[in-house]
Amino acid sequence: MSRQKHAFLFDLDGTLVDSVYQHVLAWKESLDMEGIDLSVWRIHRKIGMSGGLFTDILLRETQTEITPERIDRLRRNHAAAYGRLAEAGAVKPLPGAVELLKWLTDANIPWAIATSGRMETAAHNIAALGVDPNKVPVVTRDQVRHAKPDPDLFVTAAQRLGTDIRDAMVIGDAIWDMLAAQRARALGIGLLSGGYGENELERAGAYRVFEDPADLLRHIDEVAARS
Amino acid sequence: MSRQKHAFLFDLDGTLVDSVYQHVLAWKESLDMEGIDLSVWRIHRKIGMSGGLFTDILLRETQTEITPERIDRLRRNHAAAYGRLAEAGAVKPLPGAVELLKWLTDANIPWAIATSGRMETAAHNIAALGVDPNKVPVVTRDQVRHAKPDPDLFVTAAQRLGTDIRDAMVIGDAIWDMLAAQRARALGIGLLSGGYGENELERAGAYRVFEDPADLLRHIDEVAARS
Repeated sequence: MSRQKHAFLFDLDGTLVDSVYQHVLAWKESLDMEGIDLSVWRIHRKIGMSGGLFTDILLRETQTEITPERIDRLRRNHAAAYGRLAEAGAVKPLPGAVELLKWLTDANIPWAIATSGRMETAAHNIAALGVDPNKVPVVTRDQVRHAKPDPDLFVTAAQRLGTDIRDAMVIGDAIWDMLAAQRARALGIGLLSGGYGENELERAGAYRVFEDPADLLRHIDEVAARS
Repeated sequence: MSRQKHAFLFDLDGTLVDSVYQHVLAWKESLDMEGIDLSVWRIHRKIGMSGGLFTDILLRETQTEITPERIDRLRRNHAAAYGRLAEAGAVKPLPGAVELLKWLTDANIPWAIATSGRMETAAHNIAALGVDPNKVPVVTRDQVRHAKPDPDLFVTAAQRLGTDIRDAMVIGDAIWDMLAAQRARALGIGLLSGGYGENELERAGAYRVFEDPADLLRHIDEVAARS
């Protein structure tokens, strides 16, 4: 029997797909439509949480009244604006993302995707990565009770793979991914491709930080079990 | 005779006006139109240089052929895309920007604006700040030979105010502002409102880092001469 290989659990936006900045401006547009004035960089720093948690927090921080209708409207307007920006800007896989997933598959290292987004916005990106959700576990916000920074998404992804989360690597671009990794006792690997600073990821507990999936693949021996 | 007060030299985009993310996606669109594939976070990290220097560097880093026609096309397509995004997203002054400039004026502290942008894109933002370019020095890329991270923009702004750059504060959101400040022997004050991390600004030499103009105004006694 060979030793169990560490599973790789991936965040999606900003980690495998170059979509963070479009999400940021889509949230900006949605908040503007509600008359909620929030600087764009503050939205960027909250991205990567679930839509629900994210809007709750923004409304609380801006001391705006929170109603279920308003949160629903914010989410729908974000999805519409994102669809438009993603189409215009042609959201694509990040450099090395497709190659990294292929490398893991070829090396028989189990991997999965766990995203705070909902399937309606994630489906297009997953298709762009050439990932078949019937073969690879893809856990979305729709399927768990709590989203990041709670660890539920990654814990569920590990369960689907039949591996122990405490042996897994969590790869993400946001501090919420690194915090969720810590709470689940996984190791967090940070990527700069979502636009956060290296030090922000390290302070949130990143075990290692790389530029993007291509850079992680170049340094894969630093984190993956060698055969 | 009272002691000469330190001048405040401000960057514009991301420092006084909430426009960085729109510039980032506008550059993304412009580069896509030229078939140049570059991740959005890498564009974000180059923003705040001059348009010319910025495109030179991007083309060199992506190992794409650099021709004057191509650089001109990139710049024009960026300006068009930015105009569209800025209009849709209603680019506005950052929280506290108008109040901070008023406070400095009332305190008889000289201040000026020095931006890597050109007047064609900067004019709208300067108007939104309620700044009259006939009363306050506004130095744009059109008026100096070298843009950031060269210190020419800030040096020229200090000259216009009749103050010594070595007594000035340079307020900016990008590492290029902090590097330019160091080269001119001014003190750099970093703001997080352009979406860079605190540590990135500190590593580039920021003397102090605040969240945005409102946060700087709340802590103004830490950096401004008290009367």
